[in-house]
Amino acid sequence: MYMENQKDTNDRTCTHTSQNVSSLADLLPAMDGDTKTMTFLQEVVDILMAYIVESFDRETKVIDFHYPNELLQMNNWELQDEPATLDDILISCRATLKYAIKTAHPRYFNQLSTGLDMVGLAADWLTSTANTNMFTYEVAPVFVLLEYVSLKKMREIIGWQDGRGDGIFSPGGAISNMYAMLLARFKMFPEVKEKGMSSVPRLVAFTSEHSHFSIKKGAAALGIGTESVICIKVDESGKMIPADLERRIVEAKQKGFVPFFVSATAGTTVYGAFDPLIAISDVCKKYNVWMHVDGAWGGSLLMSRRHRWKLDGVDRANSVTWNPHKMMSVPLQCSALLVREEGLMQNCNQMHACYLFQQDKHYDLSYDTGDKALQCGRHVDIFKLWLMWRAKGTIGFEAQIDKCLELSEYLYNKIKDREGYEMVFDGKPQHTNVCFWYLPPGIRYMEDKEERKKHLHKVAPVIKARMMEYGTTMVSYQPQGDKVNFFRMVISNPAATFEDIDFLIEEIERLGQDL
Amino acid sequence: MYMENQKDTNDRTCTHTSQNVSSLADLLPAMDGDTKTMTFLQEVVDILMAYIVESFDRETKVIDFHYPNELLQMNNWELQDEPATLDDILISCRATLKYAIKTAHPRYFNQLSTGLDMVGLAADWLTSTANTNMFTYEVAPVFVLLEYVSLKKMREIIGWQDGRGDGIFSPGGAISNMYAMLLARFKMFPEVKEKGMSSVPRLVAFTSEHSHFSIKKGAAALGIGTESVICIKVDESGKMIPADLERRIVEAKQKGFVPFFVSATAGTTVYGAFDPLIAISDVCKKYNVWMHVDGAWGGSLLMSRRHRWKLDGVDRANSVTWNPHKMMSVPLQCSALLVREEGLMQNCNQMHACYLFQQDKHYDLSYDTGDKALQCGRHVDIFKLWLMWRAKGTIGFEAQIDKCLELSEYLYNKIKDREGYEMVFDGKPQHTNVCFWYLPPGIRYMEDKEERKKHLHKVAPVIKARMMEYGTTMVSYQPQGDKVNFFRMVISNPAATFEDIDFLIEEIERLGQDL
Repeated sequence: MYMENQKDTNDRTCTHTSQNVSSLADLLPAMDGDTKTMTFLQEVVDILMAYIVESFDRETKVIDFHYPNELLQMNNWELQDEPATLDDILISCRATLKYAIKTAHPRYFNQLSTGLDMVGLAADWLTSTANTNMFTYEVAPVFVLLEYVSLKKMREIIGWQDGRGDGIFSPGGAISNMYAMLLARFKMFPEVKEKGMSSVPRLVAFTSEHSHFSIKKGAAALGIGTESVICIKVDESGKMIPADLERRIVEAKQKGFVPFFVSATAGTTVYGAFDPLIAISDVCKKYNVWMHVDGAWGGSLLMSRRHRWKLDGVDRANSVTWNPHKMMSVPLQCSALLVREEGLMQNCNQMHACYLFQQDKHYDLSYDTGDKALQCGRHVDIFKLWLMWRAKGTIGFEAQIDKCLELSEYLYNKIKDREGYEMVFDGKPQHTNVCFWYLPPGIRYMEDKEERKKHLHKVAPVIKARMMEYGTTMVSYQPQGDKVNFFRMVISNPAATFEDIDFLIEEIERLGQDL
Repeated sequence: MYMENQKDTNDRTCTHTSQNVSSLADLLPAMDGDTKTMTFLQEVVDILMAYIVESFDRETKVIDFHYPNELLQMNNWELQDEPATLDDILISCRATLKYAIKTAHPRYFNQLSTGLDMVGLAADWLTSTANTNMFTYEVAPVFVLLEYVSLKKMREIIGWQDGRGDGIFSPGGAISNMYAMLLARFKMFPEVKEKGMSSVPRLVAFTSEHSHFSIKKGAAALGIGTESVICIKVDESGKMIPADLERRIVEAKQKGFVPFFVSATAGTTVYGAFDPLIAISDVCKKYNVWMHVDGAWGGSLLMSRRHRWKLDGVDRANSVTWNPHKMMSVPLQCSALLVREEGLMQNCNQMHACYLFQQDKHYDLSYDTGDKALQCGRHVDIFKLWLMWRAKGTIGFEAQIDKCLELSEYLYNKIKDREGYEMVFDGKPQHTNVCFWYLPPGIRYMEDKEERKKHLHKVAPVIKARMMEYGTTMVSYQPQGDKVNFFRMVISNPAATFEDIDFLIEEIERLGQDL
C-alpha cells in the first residue's frame, strides 16, 4: 500500500519538474542564474517538505527495507565521468529519501537520537547555506558568539559559578569523551604534549562496566591502551559502585600505576543508569583524580526541574559531555564538552599555526577559538541548538524531556506485570530506557532454564527483523553480560504518544507470538 | 548603501511573515500541523534564497564587519527560559545572515574552502532532513552504500587496483591525518591498542616544515608527543627534500628510535607545494615506514588530467587524506581518509559494542562500518559529494579545478613583474596559492633592509583589516619562517572570474597605497 502511494507522488512530481528545471550550467554562479537556481532549489524543497509530512504520518512506513545487495541493484548509484541532468538529480533525491529511515516517525525508537524538530531543521538549512567554519571569528562571527553564549548557559545549568569555564562543540560524544581524557592527562602531566607517553608513568582510567565504548576507544587512540581502562562494577540497576571504584584506585596505586581519570556515566546507553556522582566525586577528590561525567545521553535531564536530581554532584566534575542531539532532539550532530578550568583546552591543544591564527589581527583574538580544538576546520553545530533554545526557551526543552520520561514510565507500568514480559532489572527506569524480554507463548513456561535462555536469545533479533521488513516500527535490542538479547526501548522523539507505546507492544506481540 | 538595502528587505519580509506564521506549538508533530509547518519552512527558505542570490552579487559586501563586543550588543543573542515567537525566530535567522561572511561571494578568497555549490547545498538540505547517523546500515542504508561507492571511486582515482582498500569520511582533514597516524602505529605495533605507548619503543614521525599543524596535533593527542615529529627541510618552493628525510630517518634509527610514519604533503597550506611523492616513497620503502599523503588541499588535483602529475607516486602511499570540501567546493565538512590495506581500520578501532553492532542482525554486517571509526555517531557527509559528482560528472569537477588553476596563473603572471609586488618564492605556483608582498610606494625604495622589513610586516594586516571594514574582498596573510607577513591568495571558488582577480589587485593598491 505504501509503495504504490509513493510511486504516484514520484511520477507526478517528475512530470512537473521536467518542464521547469534547466541544466547545471544555468544555475548560480551563472550570469542571470537567479531565477533558475530558485526554481531548482524550490523543487528540492518541495521534495523535502513532502518527505517531512510523510515522516510524521503513522500510516507511512518507518522504513522501506531492502538488503544491501538488493538496494545496490535498485538504482544506479555509481559515479560517472559525464554529468547527469538536473531532472536526474531530483530523481536521485527522491530515490535516496524513498529508502531512507524516517527518523522523525513517531514510531522510530531505534536510537538515542530520534525525531525531527522543525526549528532545528530550519537552522540546519541556514547553517548549510552559510557554509562556514568555526575556527576563527573572522569567518564565523555570529556562530562563534553563539557558541560562546550557549556554552556559558550550559555551564550555568551544570552549576559552575557564573557559567565560568571552557568548552567546545565536537563531532559527537565519543570525541567529547576523548577530549576529556586528553585534558585530564595534560592537566596532570603537561609534558606529555611534547614528550609523549614515554615521559610519564603508567596511567590508568576508570569507568563502569556499563559505560560507553568510547572510553576504551579514546584510551586506545591516546596511547594509554584499553588494558589501562579499569571497569568498575555496577549494581543491579547499572550504577557504578563507588566502593569498588575506590578499591580499584587503591589497587592500581599499589601497583605503581597513576589513576588520572574517572568517567562516571549520567545515563548509560543500555540501562539509562545514572552513576552516583556525589559519592564518585568524593573518591576522585580523595585521590586527586580528574572526574569526567559522560552525560551524552543523560545530561539533558539537567534542563528538567523534575529530573535533574539524578545528576546531583555534576557541578563537582572537571568536565561534562552533553549531547543536545540526543534527548533534546537537536539535529545530528550536536555534542558539547564542558570544562571547569579555563585556558586548559587552549594550552593542551594549541599549535600556534600562524597562517590561521594570526596574532596581529584587528579584533579581540580571544574569539579565535580554533586552536583549542583537535580539528582544524570545524562544522557549525551551534546554530540549530541556539535557534531551538530560542524558540522553545529552557521551559520548552524541559516540557519535551519530561514528556518523554512520562511515556517511558507509562511503558514500564504497562509491561512490568503483563503476561509474557520480564524486566531486565527491577525498579522504575531513571531515564527513558526500558529494558525487557518478550517471551512468546511457546517458551513462556519452558522448564529447562538453559533451553529457555537459548530460545529467548533468538526472539528479539527475529522480531526486530520482522519490524524492519514490515516497516512499522523500530526498536533496539542487545545482550548485556550474561543476559541474553533483550529489547532496549528508548524515547527521545517528541512526536511519540501513549498510543505509539501501545502500538509498539501490540506489534511486538503480533510479530513474536509464533516464535 | 548596502546596509539600507538590507534593512528595507528585512522590514518588508517581517510585515509579510507576521501575518502567516503561527506559534511553535502549531508546527509538526502537532495534529494537522502540516500546513503551518510548510508555511514556516517556506518563510525560512525564502530568507535563504534571498541570501544566496545576494551572496553571488558583486555589489554586495562580502562581510558586514563588526568587532565582537559591538556584535554582542547588536542583537539579543542570550538564551532565555521563555520561548520566543516564530516571528522572532525568523528575525534571528535574518540577523544571523546579515552578519555572516558571504562565503559564496566571488571575491571571498580567505580560506581553502570557499564558494557555494547549488547541488551541494540542496544535498546538504536533504541530509539535514534525513537526520540520521552513519554508524549502521540499519539507520542509514542509502548513505552507507553511497559512502562505499564514493570511497571506492576515490581509491580508483588514486590508482589502487580495482579501487580496493578502505577508508572513511571524517570530520575534517586534521582528524583524517590523525587516523592515518593511528593506523601506521597500529600496523607496526598492534599491541599498542591494548597496552598503550609504554609497550613500544620511542616512535618518530616525519613531515616537512611546511606541513599542516594537524600532524603535530595528532602526535600530541596520540601520546607520541610533538618532539617526536621531525620536521624535514623544504626547498625554496616549499617541497620536502627527500635526501633530508633519509638523513633524519637514519639519524633517528641511530638514536634507537623507530621511524613509523612519514606524512608527505600534496598541496601545502601556504605555498601550495607538492612534495615529491615518488622519491619519498622510495625512502619509505627502504626503511619500511608508513607513507601518508596529506592531500587535504591538493588531493583534488587527481581529478584533473592536466594537473594530476603533481601527485605522481600517490598510489604508493599507505593512506591519503583528500578533502572534497576544499578544491571541489563541496559544502563543509567533507574529508576522506583513504587506506590501502583492507581490514586494518576495523582491527585498529573496533571495540565490539554489542548494543550498536549486534552480530545476529538479518543483513550483511560488512555494511555496519561504525566500529572502524573513532566517532560513535557520525554525521552524513557523503551525500553532498555524491550528488555533486552525479551532477557534474568527473569531467565537471575537472573543469572547475582547471579553471581555478588558470585564474591563479593569471594572477601570478599579472603581478610577477608589476611594480610594487614581490613574489615570496620564484616560479609558477603548482596549486592555486599565489604568495606575494605588496609594497606601498612609501617603502618601495627604502634602503635600510631591516627597516623596510619591519614596515612591510605591518602592511598586509592593515590592508586586510581595511578589506574587512569595507567588506569588499577577503584574502589571507601570514608570516612564514623568516619571511614577514605576505598575502596568500588561493582560489577554490568556482564563482571567481578574471575580473575578480583584477579587482583584488586594484583593491590591495587602493587600500594600501598610503601605508
